[in-house]
Amino acid sequence: MRIRLDLAYDGTAFHGWAAQPGLRTVQGELQSALATILRVGSVSVVCAGRTDAGVHARGQVVHLDVEGAPEPERLVRRLNGVLAADVRVRRAVVAPEGFDARFGALWRRYAYRIADTPAAVDPLSRAHVLTWPRPLDERAMNAASLLLVGRHDFASFCKQREGATTIRTLEQLSWARDDSGVLVGTVVADAFCHSMVRALVGCLIAVGEGRQPVDWADEILRAELRNPAVAVVHAHGLTLEEVGYPADDELAARADQTRAKRVADA
Amino acid sequence: MRIRLDLAYDGTAFHGWAAQPGLRTVQGELQSALATILRVGSVSVVCAGRTDAGVHARGQVVHLDVEGAPEPERLVRRLNGVLAADVRVRRAVVAPEGFDARFGALWRRYAYRIADTPAAVDPLSRAHVLTWPRPLDERAMNAASLLLVGRHDFASFCKQREGATTIRTLEQLSWARDDSGVLVGTVVADAFCHSMVRALVGCLIAVGEGRQPVDWADEILRAELRNPAVAVVHAHGLTLEEVGYPADDELAARADQTRAKRVADA
Repeated sequence: MRIRLDLAYDGTAFHGWAAQPGLRTVQGELQSALATILRVGSVSVVCAGRTDAGVHARGQVVHLDVEGAPEPERLVRRLNGVLAADVRVRRAVVAPEGFDARFGALWRRYAYRIADTPAAVDPLSRAHVLTWPRPLDERAMNAASLLLVGRHDFASFCKQREGATTIRTLEQLSWARDDSGVLVGTVVADAFCHSMVRALVGCLIAVGEGRQPVDWADEILRAELRNPAVAVVHAHGLTLEEVGYPADDELAARADQTRAKRVADA
Repeated sequence: MRIRLDLAYDGTAFHGWAAQPGLRTVQGELQSALATILRVGSVSVVCAGRTDAGVHARGQVVHLDVEGAPEPERLVRRLNGVLAADVRVRRAVVAPEGFDARFGALWRRYAYRIADTPAAVDPLSRAHVLTWPRPLDERAMNAASLLLVGRHDFASFCKQREGATTIRTLEQLSWARDDSGVLVGTVVADAFCHSMVRALVGCLIAVGEGRQPVDWADEILRAELRNPAVAVVHAHGLTLEEVGYPADDELAARADQTRAKRVADA
Protein backbone atom coordinates (compact mmCIF):
# COMPACT_ATOMS: atom_id res chain seq x y z
CA MET A 1 0.00 0.00 0.00
CA ARG A 2 1.27 3.46 -0.93
CA ILE A 3 0.95 6.38 1.49
CA ARG A 4 1.18 10.06 0.53
CA LEU A 5 2.53 12.45 3.17
CA ASP A 6 2.42 16.27 2.97
CA LEU A 7 5.27 17.88 4.88
CA ALA A 8 6.42 21.29 6.04
CA TYR A 9 9.89 22.04 7.39
CA ASP A 10 12.15 24.82 8.51
CA GLY A 11 15.32 24.01 6.54
CA THR A 12 17.62 26.03 8.82
CA ALA A 13 18.98 23.12 10.82
CA PHE A 14 18.89 20.51 8.03
CA HIS A 15 21.56 19.62 5.49
CA GLY A 16 18.85 19.59 2.85
CA TRP A 17 16.37 16.89 1.90
CA ALA A 18 18.51 13.98 0.75
CA ALA A 19 19.73 11.49 3.35
CA GLN A 20 23.50 11.65 3.90
CA PRO A 21 25.45 9.56 6.41
CA GLY A 22 26.27 11.48 9.58
CA LEU A 23 24.26 14.59 8.63
CA ARG A 24 20.82 15.73 9.80
CA THR A 25 18.56 15.72 6.73
CA VAL A 26 14.79 15.82 6.33
CA GLN A 27 14.68 12.49 4.51
CA GLY A 28 16.94 10.91 7.15
CA GLU A 29 14.80 12.16 10.06
CA LEU A 30 11.54 11.18 8.38
CA GLN A 31 12.73 7.69 7.42
CA SER A 32 14.01 7.09 10.90
CA ALA A 33 10.72 8.27 12.49
CA LEU A 34 8.75 6.03 10.11
CA ALA A 35 10.94 3.02 10.90
CA THR A 36 10.30 3.57 14.62
CA ILE A 37 6.54 3.91 14.22
CA LEU A 38 6.03 1.15 11.66
CA ARG A 39 8.45 -1.10 13.58
CA VAL A 40 10.44 -2.05 10.52
CA GLY A 41 14.18 -2.06 9.89
CA SER A 42 14.13 0.70 7.30
CA VAL A 43 11.74 2.76 5.21
CA SER A 44 12.38 4.55 1.90
CA VAL A 45 10.54 7.74 1.04
CA VAL A 46 10.49 9.48 -2.37
CA CYS A 47 9.89 13.25 -2.50
CA ALA A 48 8.62 15.69 -5.12
CA GLY A 49 11.34 18.32 -4.64
CA ARG A 50 14.81 17.51 -3.34
CA THR A 51 15.44 20.79 -1.51
CA ASP A 52 19.03 21.98 -0.95
CA ALA A 53 20.56 22.71 2.44
CA GLY A 54 18.77 25.62 4.09
CA VAL A 55 15.75 25.59 1.76
CA HIS A 56 12.34 25.31 3.46
CA ALA A 57 9.08 23.63 2.51
CA ARG A 58 5.43 24.17 3.25
CA GLY A 59 4.13 21.83 0.55
CA GLN A 60 6.64 19.00 0.17
CA VAL A 61 5.00 15.74 -0.95
CA VAL A 62 6.45 12.28 -0.40
CA HIS A 63 5.32 8.71 -0.90
CA LEU A 64 6.27 5.47 0.78
CA ASP A 65 5.16 1.89 0.42
CA VAL A 66 4.05 0.03 3.52
CA GLU A 67 2.74 -3.38 4.46
CA GLY A 68 -0.64 -3.34 6.16
CA ALA A 69 -2.78 -0.28 6.57
CA PRO A 70 -1.88 2.34 9.23
CA GLU A 71 -4.81 4.64 9.92
CA PRO A 72 -3.72 7.95 8.30
CA GLU A 73 -4.80 10.36 11.09
CA ARG A 74 -3.07 8.21 13.65
CA LEU A 75 0.06 8.13 11.47
CA VAL A 76 0.14 11.97 11.38
CA ARG A 77 -0.21 12.19 15.16
CA ARG A 78 2.40 9.55 15.86
CA LEU A 79 4.93 10.94 13.37
CA ASN A 80 4.57 14.46 14.78
CA GLY A 81 5.09 12.99 18.25
CA VAL A 82 8.44 11.51 17.18
CA LEU A 83 9.74 14.20 14.79
CA ALA A 84 11.45 17.39 16.00
CA ALA A 85 9.42 20.63 15.84
CA ASP A 86 11.21 21.86 12.69
CA VAL A 87 9.54 19.24 10.51
CA ARG A 88 5.80 18.50 10.63
CA VAL A 89 3.56 16.09 8.81
CA ARG A 90 0.48 18.06 7.79
CA ARG A 91 -1.49 15.28 6.15
CA ALA A 92 -1.34 11.56 5.40
CA VAL A 93 -3.60 9.72 2.95
CA VAL A 94 -3.67 6.37 1.22
CA ALA A 95 -2.31 7.36 -2.21
CA PRO A 96 -4.55 6.86 -5.23
CA GLU A 97 -3.63 4.12 -7.71
CA GLY A 98 -0.55 5.06 -9.76
CA PHE A 99 0.54 7.94 -7.49
CA ASP A 100 4.24 8.79 -7.55
CA ALA A 101 5.34 11.87 -5.56
CA ARG A 102 8.28 12.52 -7.88
CA PHE A 103 7.37 11.33 -11.36
CA GLY A 104 3.68 12.07 -11.06
CA ALA A 105 4.17 15.78 -10.31
CA LEU A 106 3.01 18.23 -12.98
CA TRP A 107 4.66 21.29 -11.48
CA ARG A 108 6.52 22.59 -8.44
CA ARG A 109 5.87 26.07 -7.01
CA TYR A 110 8.58 27.84 -5.03
CA ALA A 111 8.51 31.25 -3.34
CA TYR A 112 11.57 33.43 -2.81
CA ARG A 113 11.06 36.17 -0.20
CA ILE A 114 13.10 39.36 0.12
CA ALA A 115 12.78 42.22 2.64
CA ASP A 116 14.54 45.10 0.88
CA THR A 117 13.60 47.97 3.22
CA PRO A 118 13.98 48.29 7.02
CA ALA A 119 10.17 48.60 7.32
CA ALA A 120 9.69 45.19 5.67
CA VAL A 121 12.16 43.30 7.86
CA ASP A 122 10.35 41.13 10.41
CA PRO A 123 12.53 39.31 12.95
CA LEU A 124 9.75 36.70 13.26
CA SER A 125 10.30 35.58 9.67
CA ARG A 126 14.04 36.17 9.40
CA ALA A 127 14.67 32.42 8.97
CA HIS A 128 12.78 32.34 5.67
CA VAL A 129 12.97 35.88 4.28
CA LEU A 130 16.21 37.27 2.87
CA THR A 131 17.14 40.73 4.17
CA TRP A 132 18.52 42.77 1.29
CA PRO A 133 20.31 46.04 2.06
CA ARG A 134 19.14 48.01 -1.00
CA PRO A 135 15.65 48.62 -2.42
CA LEU A 136 14.65 46.51 -5.43
CA ASP A 137 12.54 47.65 -8.37
CA GLU A 138 9.94 44.91 -8.78
CA ARG A 139 8.76 46.29 -12.11
CA ALA A 140 12.21 45.82 -13.64
CA MET A 141 12.37 42.36 -12.07
CA ASN A 142 9.00 41.43 -13.56
CA ALA A 143 10.03 42.67 -16.99
CA ALA A 144 13.23 40.59 -16.85
CA SER A 145 11.33 37.58 -15.47
CA LEU A 146 9.04 37.56 -18.53
CA LEU A 147 12.11 37.05 -20.73
CA LEU A 148 12.86 33.81 -18.88
CA VAL A 149 9.39 32.25 -18.88
CA GLY A 150 8.82 29.36 -21.30
CA ARG A 151 10.61 26.21 -22.44
CA HIS A 152 14.35 26.88 -22.61
CA ASP A 153 17.73 25.37 -21.96
CA PHE A 154 18.47 26.81 -18.49
CA ALA A 155 22.14 25.73 -18.55
CA SER A 156 23.13 29.31 -17.57
CA PHE A 157 21.25 28.89 -14.29
CA CYS A 158 22.09 25.26 -13.50
CA LYS A 159 24.96 23.39 -11.97
CA GLN A 160 26.05 21.16 -14.82
CA ARG A 161 25.69 17.46 -14.22
CA GLU A 162 27.25 15.03 -16.71
CA GLY A 163 24.65 13.68 -19.12
CA ALA A 164 21.65 15.47 -17.55
CA THR A 165 19.43 17.80 -19.55
CA THR A 166 18.97 21.40 -18.43
CA ILE A 167 15.88 21.96 -20.57
CA ARG A 168 12.94 22.98 -18.40
CA THR A 169 9.57 24.70 -18.83
CA LEU A 170 9.34 27.76 -16.61
CA GLU A 171 5.59 28.32 -16.33
CA GLN A 172 5.60 31.33 -14.03
CA LEU A 173 8.20 33.74 -12.69
CA SER A 174 6.75 36.90 -11.16
CA TRP A 175 7.20 39.32 -8.28
CA ALA A 176 4.69 41.01 -6.00
CA ARG A 177 4.77 42.68 -2.58
CA ASP A 178 2.77 41.15 0.25
CA ASP A 179 0.87 43.20 2.88
CA SER A 180 4.03 43.84 4.87
CA GLY A 181 6.04 45.04 1.86
CA VAL A 182 8.06 41.83 1.46
CA LEU A 183 8.92 41.14 -2.18
CA VAL A 184 7.76 37.60 -3.05
CA GLY A 185 8.95 35.86 -6.19
CA THR A 186 6.73 33.02 -7.41
CA VAL A 187 8.48 30.41 -9.54
CA VAL A 188 6.59 27.53 -11.14
CA ALA A 189 8.12 24.91 -13.45
CA ASP A 190 7.61 21.30 -14.42
CA ALA A 191 10.92 20.61 -12.69
CA PHE A 192 14.07 22.46 -11.65
CA CYS A 193 17.72 21.60 -11.95
CA HIS A 194 20.14 22.09 -9.07
CA SER A 195 20.33 25.69 -7.71
CA MET A 196 18.21 26.94 -10.64
CA VAL A 197 15.72 29.02 -8.65
CA ARG A 198 18.45 30.67 -6.60
CA ALA A 199 20.45 31.52 -9.75
CA LEU A 200 17.34 32.97 -11.42
CA VAL A 201 16.71 35.11 -8.34
CA GLY A 202 20.37 36.17 -8.26
CA CYS A 203 20.11 37.37 -11.85
CA LEU A 204 16.85 39.24 -11.15
CA ILE A 205 18.19 40.94 -8.01
CA ALA A 206 21.00 42.40 -10.15
CA VAL A 207 18.30 43.82 -12.44
CA GLY A 208 16.15 44.98 -9.50
CA GLU A 209 19.06 46.90 -8.03
CA GLY A 210 19.75 48.54 -11.39
CA ARG A 211 23.22 46.97 -11.62
CA GLN A 212 22.12 45.31 -14.88
CA PRO A 213 19.52 46.26 -17.49
CA VAL A 214 16.34 44.21 -17.96
CA ASP A 215 17.70 42.60 -21.17
CA TRP A 216 20.59 41.12 -19.27
CA ALA A 217 18.34 38.23 -18.19
CA ASP A 218 17.82 37.28 -21.82
CA GLU A 219 21.53 37.57 -22.59
CA ILE A 220 22.41 35.25 -19.74
CA LEU A 221 19.73 32.74 -20.78
CA ARG A 222 20.88 32.63 -24.43
CA ALA A 223 24.53 32.08 -23.46
CA GLU A 224 23.52 28.62 -22.12
CA LEU A 225 26.60 28.71 -19.91
CA ARG A 226 27.04 29.45 -16.20
CA ASN A 227 28.13 33.07 -15.80
CA PRO A 228 29.97 33.99 -12.57
CA ALA A 229 28.24 37.40 -12.66
CA VAL A 230 25.02 35.59 -11.74
CA ALA A 231 25.11 34.99 -7.98
CA VAL A 232 23.33 31.99 -6.51
CA VAL A 233 21.45 33.76 -3.70
CA HIS A 234 21.12 32.49 -0.13
CA ALA A 235 19.11 29.32 0.37
CA HIS A 236 17.11 30.59 3.36
CA GLY A 237 14.84 32.89 1.29
CA LEU A 238 13.54 29.91 -0.67
CA THR A 239 10.49 27.78 0.21
CA LEU A 240 8.89 24.91 -1.72
CA GLU A 241 5.25 25.95 -1.42
CA GLU A 242 3.22 23.48 -3.47
CA VAL A 243 3.43 20.53 -5.84
CA GLY A 244 0.72 19.95 -8.44
CA TYR A 245 -0.55 16.53 -9.55
CA PRO A 246 -3.03 15.53 -12.23
CA ALA A 247 -6.47 14.12 -11.45
CA ASP A 248 -6.39 10.64 -9.95
CA ASP A 249 -7.28 8.84 -13.19
CA GLU A 250 -4.33 10.44 -15.03
CA LEU A 251 -1.70 9.73 -12.36
CA ALA A 252 -0.24 6.54 -13.78
CA ALA A 253 -0.03 7.89 -17.35
CA ARG A 254 1.74 11.04 -16.11
CA ALA A 255 4.32 9.10 -14.08
CA ASP A 256 5.10 6.79 -17.02
CA GLN A 257 5.43 9.72 -19.37
CA THR A 258 7.80 11.63 -17.04
CA ARG A 259 9.98 8.55 -16.53
CA ALA A 260 10.21 8.00 -20.29
CA LYS A 261 11.02 11.68 -20.94
CA ARG A 262 13.77 11.76 -18.32
CA VAL A 263 15.39 8.71 -19.93
CA ALA A 264 15.14 10.26 -23.42
CA ASP A 265 16.47 13.66 -22.23
CA ALA A 266 19.43 12.16 -20.37
CA MET B 1 14.63 66.58 20.65
CA ARG B 2 12.32 63.57 20.86
CA ILE B 3 12.72 60.60 18.48
CA ARG B 4 10.05 57.98 17.79
CA LEU B 5 11.28 54.47 16.89
CA ASP B 6 9.10 51.65 15.54
CA LEU B 7 10.44 48.23 16.48
CA ALA B 8 9.87 44.58 15.72
CA TYR B 9 11.31 41.71 17.72
CA ASP B 10 11.26 37.97 18.12
CA GLY B 11 10.72 37.64 21.87
CA THR B 12 12.04 34.07 22.07
CA ALA B 13 15.50 34.92 23.37
CA PHE B 14 14.54 37.97 25.44
CA HIS B 15 13.46 38.17 29.07
CA GLY B 16 10.71 40.54 27.99
CA TRP B 17 10.82 44.27 27.32
CA ALA B 18 11.84 45.82 30.63
CA ALA B 19 15.57 46.19 31.38
CA GLN B 20 16.72 43.90 34.20
CA PRO B 21 20.28 43.61 35.47
CA GLY B 22 22.09 40.56 34.07
CA LEU B 23 19.24 39.54 31.73
CA ARG B 24 18.91 40.04 27.98
CA THR B 25 15.90 42.31 27.44
CA VAL B 26 14.71 44.35 24.46
CA GLN B 27 14.94 47.63 26.37
CA GLY B 28 18.41 46.74 27.63
CA GLU B 29 19.71 45.85 24.15
CA LEU B 30 18.15 48.90 22.53
CA GLN B 31 19.42 51.34 25.18
CA SER B 32 22.89 49.89 24.93
CA ALA B 33 22.88 50.13 21.10
CA LEU B 34 21.67 53.74 21.32
CA ALA B 35 24.36 54.65 23.84
CA THR B 36 27.01 53.22 21.49
CA ILE B 37 25.71 55.06 18.45
CA LEU B 38 24.92 58.37 20.12
CA ARG B 39 28.22 58.20 22.10
CA VAL B 40 26.59 58.96 25.40
CA GLY B 41 26.86 57.25 28.78
CA SER B 42 23.26 56.07 28.90
CA VAL B 43 19.96 56.46 27.09
CA SER B 44 16.43 55.92 28.42
CA VAL B 45 13.66 54.73 26.13
CA VAL B 46 9.93 54.60 26.94
CA CYS B 47 7.71 52.04 25.16
CA ALA B 48 4.01 51.74 24.39
CA GLY B 49 3.61 48.12 25.48
CA ARG B 50 5.84 46.45 28.08
CA THR B 51 5.77 42.95 26.64
CA ASP B 52 6.38 39.96 28.94
CA ALA B 53 9.12 37.38 28.48
CA GLY B 54 8.59 35.47 25.23
CA VAL B 55 6.04 37.90 23.76
CA HIS B 56 6.87 39.29 20.30
CA ALA B 57 6.28 42.63 18.62
CA ARG B 58 5.84 43.86 15.08
CA GLY B 59 4.57 47.30 16.01
CA GLN B 60 6.25 48.33 19.26
CA VAL B 61 6.67 52.09 19.56
CA VAL B 62 9.24 53.84 21.76
CA HIS B 63 10.45 57.37 22.31
CA LEU B 64 13.73 58.79 23.52
CA ASP B 65 15.07 62.27 24.03
CA VAL B 66 18.36 63.18 22.45
CA GLU B 67 20.65 66.17 22.16
CA GLY B 68 21.35 67.27 18.61
CA ALA B 69 19.60 65.87 15.58
CA PRO B 70 20.65 62.46 14.22
CA GLU B 71 19.39 61.94 10.67
CA PRO B 72 16.55 59.38 11.12
CA GLU B 73 17.38 57.10 8.14
CA ARG B 74 20.98 56.95 9.22
CA LEU B 75 19.88 56.16 12.79
CA VAL B 76 17.82 53.17 11.53
CA ARG B 77 20.75 51.84 9.51
CA ARG B 78 23.26 52.26 12.31
CA LEU B 79 21.00 50.76 15.00
CA ASN B 80 20.27 47.72 12.82
CA GLY B 81 24.01 47.36 12.27
CA VAL B 82 24.61 47.14 16.03
CA LEU B 83 21.49 45.22 17.18
CA ALA B 84 21.18 41.42 16.93
CA ALA B 85 18.93 40.04 14.17
CA ASP B 86 16.06 39.27 16.57
CA VAL B 87 15.28 42.95 17.07
CA ARG B 88 14.98 45.42 14.18
CA VAL B 89 14.25 49.11 13.99
CA ARG B 90 11.73 49.56 11.18
CA ARG B 91 11.44 53.33 11.27
CA ALA B 92 12.78 56.40 13.05
CA VAL B 93 11.25 59.87 12.89
CA VAL B 94 11.54 63.11 14.79
CA ALA B 95 8.47 62.87 17.05
CA PRO B 96 5.76 65.49 16.70
CA GLU B 97 5.33 68.02 19.52
CA GLY B 98 3.80 66.41 22.62
CA PHE B 99 4.39 62.80 21.51
CA ASP B 100 4.68 60.25 24.30
CA ALA B 101 4.95 56.58 23.24
CA ARG B 102 3.31 55.37 26.45
CA PHE B 103 0.86 58.00 27.65
CA GLY B 104 -0.06 59.24 24.19
CA ALA B 105 -1.26 55.84 22.94
CA LEU B 106 -5.01 55.49 22.26
CA TRP B 107 -5.00 51.74 21.89
CA ARG B 108 -2.78 48.67 21.62
CA ARG B 109 -3.55 45.81 19.23
CA TYR B 110 -2.27 42.33 19.99
CA ALA B 111 -2.66 39.11 17.97
CA TYR B 112 -2.72 35.64 19.49
CA ARG B 113 -2.10 32.85 16.95
CA ILE B 114 -3.07 29.19 17.37
CA ALA B 115 -2.55 26.25 14.99
CA ASP B 116 -5.14 23.73 16.17
CA THR B 117 -4.90 21.17 13.35
CA PRO B 118 -1.84 19.36 11.90
CA ALA B 119 -2.56 21.00 8.52
CA ALA B 120 -2.24 24.49 10.05
CA VAL B 121 1.07 23.88 11.82
CA ASP B 122 3.93 25.60 9.99
CA PRO B 123 7.44 24.97 11.34
CA LEU B 124 8.47 28.34 9.84
CA SER B 125 6.20 30.19 12.25
CA ARG B 126 6.47 27.88 15.25
CA ALA B 127 8.21 30.61 17.29
CA HIS B 128 5.11 32.82 17.21
CA VAL B 129 2.16 30.49 16.70
CA LEU B 130 0.95 28.21 19.49
CA THR B 131 0.42 24.58 18.45
CA TRP B 132 -2.73 23.31 20.11
CA PRO B 133 -3.43 19.55 20.10
CA ARG B 134 -7.22 19.72 19.75
CA PRO B 135 -9.45 21.59 17.28
CA LEU B 136 -11.07 24.81 18.52
CA ASP B 137 -14.53 26.08 17.64
CA GLU B 138 -13.98 29.72 16.66
CA ARG B 139 -17.71 30.46 16.63
CA ALA B 140 -18.01 29.57 20.32
CA MET B 141 -14.87 31.59 21.01
CA ASN B 142 -16.32 34.61 19.20
CA ALA B 143 -19.59 34.33 21.10
CA ALA B 144 -17.72 34.22 24.42
CA SER B 145 -15.41 37.07 23.33
CA LEU B 146 -18.40 39.36 22.77
CA LEU B 147 -19.32 38.94 26.45
CA LEU B 148 -15.95 40.39 27.42
CA VAL B 149 -15.85 43.42 25.11
CA GLY B 150 -16.48 46.82 26.73
CA ARG B 151 -15.38 48.73 29.82
CA HIS B 152 -15.09 46.31 32.75
CA ASP B 153 -13.05 45.50 35.79
CA PHE B 154 -10.78 42.76 34.39
CA ALA B 155 -9.50 41.71 37.83
CA SER B 156 -10.35 38.07 36.95
CA PHE B 157 -7.81 38.19 34.13
CA CYS B 158 -5.09 40.30 35.76
CA LYS B 159 -2.24 39.69 38.12
CA GLN B 160 -3.18 41.86 41.10
CA ARG B 161 -0.85 44.72 41.84
CA GLU B 162 -1.29 46.67 45.08
CA GLY B 163 -3.17 49.92 44.45
CA ALA B 164 -3.41 49.55 40.66
CA THR B 165 -6.73 49.62 38.86
CA THR B 166 -7.79 46.67 36.69
CA ILE B 167 -10.52 48.60 34.87
CA ARG B 168 -9.87 48.58 31.14
CA THR B 169 -11.83 49.15 27.93
CA LEU B 170 -11.64 46.10 25.68
CA GLU B 171 -12.49 47.54 22.28
CA GLN B 172 -12.15 44.37 20.19
CA LEU B 173 -11.77 40.67 20.90
CA SER B 174 -12.45 38.44 17.90
CA TRP B 175 -11.23 35.30 16.15
CA ALA B 176 -10.74 34.48 12.49
CA ARG B 177 -8.77 31.92 10.48
CA ASP B 178 -6.06 33.15 8.14
CA ASP B 179 -5.34 31.62 4.70
CA SER B 180 -3.37 28.76 6.22
CA GLY B 181 -6.07 27.85 8.76
CA VAL B 182 -4.31 29.43 11.74
CA LEU B 183 -6.78 30.82 14.28
CA VAL B 184 -5.91 34.47 14.95
CA GLY B 185 -7.33 36.32 17.94
CA THR B 186 -7.33 40.12 17.65
CA VAL B 187 -7.35 41.98 20.95
CA VAL B 188 -7.57 45.77 21.12
CA ALA B 189 -7.79 47.82 24.32
CA ASP B 190 -6.83 51.24 25.62
CA ALA B 191 -4.34 49.43 27.84
CA PHE B 192 -3.78 45.98 29.34
CA CYS B 193 -2.80 44.85 32.79
CA HIS B 194 -0.18 42.20 33.36
CA SER B 195 -0.89 38.82 31.66
CA MET B 196 -4.42 39.99 30.72
CA VAL B 197 -4.37 38.98 27.04
CA ARG B 198 -2.96 35.55 27.83
CA ALA B 199 -5.59 34.95 30.55
CA LEU B 200 -8.40 36.07 28.19
CA VAL B 201 -7.09 33.63 25.56
CA GLY B 202 -6.80 30.86 28.17
CA CYS B 203 -10.46 31.36 29.08
CA LEU B 204 -11.54 31.35 25.42
CA ILE B 205 -9.56 28.21 24.56
CA ALA B 206 -11.49 26.37 27.28
CA VAL B 207 -14.68 27.50 25.54
CA GLY B 208 -13.32 26.68 22.07
CA GLU B 209 -12.49 23.14 23.15
CA GLY B 210 -15.97 22.71 24.60
CA ARG B 211 -14.61 22.20 28.15
CA GLN B 212 -16.67 25.23 29.23
CA PRO B 213 -19.87 26.77 27.88
CA VAL B 214 -19.88 30.19 26.18
CA ASP B 215 -21.39 31.88 29.28
CA TRP B 216 -18.45 30.84 31.38
CA ALA B 217 -16.52 33.86 30.07
CA ASP B 218 -19.14 36.18 31.56
CA GLU B 219 -19.14 34.27 34.86
CA ILE B 220 -15.39 34.61 35.19
CA LEU B 221 -15.51 38.32 34.32
CA ARG B 222 -18.20 39.11 36.89
CA ALA B 223 -16.36 37.27 39.69
CA GLU B 224 -13.66 40.01 39.52
CA LEU B 225 -11.24 37.54 41.05
CA ARG B 226 -8.46 35.43 39.54
CA ASN B 227 -9.76 31.91 38.97
CA PRO B 228 -7.20 29.09 38.76
CA ALA B 229 -9.43 27.38 36.16
CA VAL B 230 -8.40 30.14 33.74
CA ALA B 231 -4.97 29.21 32.39
CA VAL B 232 -2.56 31.93 31.35
CA VAL B 233 -1.55 30.53 27.94
CA HIS B 234 1.98 30.43 26.56
CA ALA B 235 3.64 33.76 25.81
CA HIS B 236 5.03 32.75 22.41
CA GLY B 237 1.65 32.88 20.61
CA LEU B 238 1.30 36.58 21.45
CA THR B 239 2.50 39.50 19.30
CA LEU B 240 2.07 43.25 19.85
CA GLU B 241 1.00 44.23 16.33
CA GLU B 242 0.17 47.92 16.43
CA VAL B 243 -0.20 50.96 18.68
CA GLY B 244 -2.62 53.74 17.78
CA TYR B 245 -2.02 57.46 18.45
CA PRO B 246 -4.24 60.48 17.92
CA ALA B 247 -3.57 63.09 15.24
CA ASP B 248 -0.49 65.21 15.88
CA ASP B 249 -2.43 68.23 17.22
CA GLU B 250 -4.16 66.11 19.88
CA LEU B 251 -1.04 64.34 21.15
CA ALA B 252 -0.22 66.52 24.11
CA ALA B 253 -3.83 66.66 25.35
CA ARG B 254 -4.10 62.87 25.16
CA ALA B 255 -0.87 62.29 27.09
CA ASP B 256 -1.92 64.72 29.83
CA GLN B 257 -5.34 63.12 30.09
CA THR B 258 -3.90 59.57 30.36
CA ARG B 259 -1.41 60.63 33.04
CA ALA B 260 -4.20 62.28 35.06
CA LYS B 261 -6.47 59.24 34.69
CA ARG B 262 -3.74 56.82 35.82
CA VAL B 263 -3.17 58.91 38.92
CA ALA B 264 -6.92 59.10 39.68
CA ASP B 265 -7.43 55.35 39.05
CA ALA B 266 -4.51 54.32 41.28
